[in-house]
Amino acid sequence: MVRALQLARRGLYTTQPNPRVGCVIVRDGHIVGEGWHERAGEPHAEVNALRMAGEAACGADVYVTLEPCSHYGRTPPCANALVQAGVARVIAAMVDPNPLVAGNGLQILQQAGIATASGLLESAARALNPGFISRMEHNRPYIRVKMAMSLDGRTAMASGESVWITGEAARRDVQFLRAQAGAMLTGIGTVLADDPSLNVRLTAAELGIQGEVRQPTRIVLDSSLQFPLTAAMLKLSGDIRVYTCSDNFAKITQLEQAGINVRRFTGEKLVLADVMTALVDDGITEVHVEAGATLSGALVEQGFADELVIYLAPHLMGSSARALFNLPHINQMEERLNLTIRDIRAVGQDWRMIISPQIRG
Amino acid sequence: MVRALQLARRGLYTTQPNPRVGCVIVRDGHIVGEGWHERAGEPHAEVNALRMAGEAACGADVYVTLEPCSHYGRTPPCANALVQAGVARVIAAMVDPNPLVAGNGLQILQQAGIATASGLLESAARALNPGFISRMEHNRPYIRVKMAMSLDGRTAMASGESVWITGEAARRDVQFLRAQAGAMLTGIGTVLADDPSLNVRLTAAELGIQGEVRQPTRIVLDSSLQFPLTAAMLKLSGDIRVYTCSDNFAKITQLEQAGINVRRFTGEKLVLADVMTALVDDGITEVHVEAGATLSGALVEQGFADELVIYLAPHLMGSSARALFNLPHINQMEERLNLTIRDIRAVGQDWRMIISPQIRG
Repeated sequence: MVRALQLARRGLYTTQPNPRVGCVIVRDGHIVGEGWHERAGEPHAEVNALRMAGEAACGADVYVTLEPCSHYGRTPPCANALVQAGVARVIAAMVDPNPLVAGNGLQILQQAGIATASGLLESAARALNPGFISRMEHNRPYIRVKMAMSLDGRTAMASGESVWITGEAARRDVQFLRAQAGAMLTGIGTVLADDPSLNVRLTAAELGIQGEVRQPTRIVLDSSLQFPLTAAMLKLSGDIRVYTCSDNFAKITQLEQAGINVRRFTGEKLVLADVMTALVDDGITEVHVEAGATLSGALVEQGFADELVIYLAPHLMGSSARALFNLPHINQMEERLNLTIRDIRAVGQDWRMIISPQIRG
Repeated sequence: MVRALQLARRGLYTTQPNPRVGCVIVRDGHIVGEGWHERAGEPHAEVNALRMAGEAACGADVYVTLEPCSHYGRTPPCANALVQAGVARVIAAMVDPNPLVAGNGLQILQQAGIATASGLLESAARALNPGFISRMEHNRPYIRVKMAMSLDGRTAMASGESVWITGEAARRDVQFLRAQAGAMLTGIGTVLADDPSLNVRLTAAELGIQGEVRQPTRIVLDSSLQFPLTAAMLKLSGDIRVYTCSDNFAKITQLEQAGINVRRFTGEKLVLADVMTALVDDGITEVHVEAGATLSGALVEQGFADELVIYLAPHLMGSSARALFNLPHINQMEERLNLTIRDIRAVGQDWRMIISPQIRG
């Protein structure tokens, strides 16, 4: 299963919006087949492993990081393929949280007389696909919020002046996070202030993948449609979506002509819960947020941030500099938000913290 | 020498204001004598080790973490004692930075025909005695500034409301830092706001020492002499000093009658450079600062903070909460202060960062 998890991880930068899955087929103590899912529309991990195993799959044990699918999607059900191959046992790291599968895959196998088990290294398997699982279990995407701050928790000068706070190693590290995501999310404030490209600048070789580098969809929250037609992100090909509440149809048309997909919401200002629903509707399950203190703060405060990745730069920027998160509703100690720091490690001169907010009930 | 450094460390909580020193005497590959300096006025490490070695010291190698002293202080010079014992070689981790010694100790040994060397594990030996070395080399104490902050760099609510930010493990960890220090330094703002006791609450057993727990001198910077006679720290025995610019002699007399040592400075407001001189004059070499954003910020900004120990609590306290350091003079990115993060480690639920500010020229 450890090997199957390794294989699944090879799809980290390519499978979106599909889950990363790995499969190992073992017969008589030897690996006879290995496979992983590489891209949406291409064969699933099990099918690739069965192809490699050929007739050796007959009577073999199959280790797979996610329950084999039971439904016809872009490819036929893997459960059927395993039955046809005549495997003896299937061990899944986790049951598929997709309600279209949810145990049906294992049931098909059992009905065919194949022994099944699930739950082996389950937490590692879940960690491979936070977006897929969040969509299936909570009907919203997994939201990772990336920030960079000085040691005293500041992100820019009071004047708005900002340069890269972190060093080159940290900025490169962020590129790998971007490459994992189905979409990058930011606010119009950041677009107007920093004019970011929000693209993945790593090569396929640097990502260790075959074929082209997948650019995540770029999504801008822009209630009053201030998105400038001169924005740097328009200079790069790739999917750009603007979520707005504006009924300025002339501007909407202009943006659409520039290749931007504009989605209109009712109300005066975008509501994050509605944004979550729209993201799922747009097929986005894993979101990487690079935004300012307002949007990032709102995601944290409203409990939508599943993970914070904070790069701590060894500087003091002072008490008048800008805050990490705008959290205007915290006025008393008992209102403070609790976090769990899962990991701190050095990345070049900076330190990266991976943090889980504890969502309040 | 590693053993000698271990022995020296046994004096971590007791030798102030003297340096921590360890000594090992080796003959024919076996340790025949060990000693360390325990308390000011008691025998030095070398004398203790020589006592244990007895006649075996003759012709032996002596490893000592600091150059043997050459002057008559409260005890006779150790260099002479080593000569009398007839040792063959003396290896010192570092030359004594005390201008009264500064190589004279080794010279006495050489003149008596004893082979000498120095510099073995020197940086570890220097780290034992930051205060002693700072006083000797820079004529000011070593200043360690302890702070506790939320992940977003905040120390209290805007209202001033504050509870313990960090958990029990972190607060216990701080007790060991307090116990190392020659003095604890704070500002009158903290005394008025939090009324701290600033004492060491660990037992001798917890500190791993023999005899009584030494309470560091408590020093309060109080330009206009607002120190309240009801302060909690008066309830505990031990040395309290107030540094002030006030000429309110009635209040000074009151404080003195309460057992406080009041030191008057000229000018309207205390100047940190003058405070440093006074601390050295008061025999203080290693200072542990637990103060608010104003005093801590000024120590950092003016380059007097040699080490920051920051406990990071897994909370977000929000953008209106109080800043870690008041650093009002930083308005541009190029004015930010550079730090080096030497160590980050988990202490209970919190994380402790040990940081060296990079003093600007």
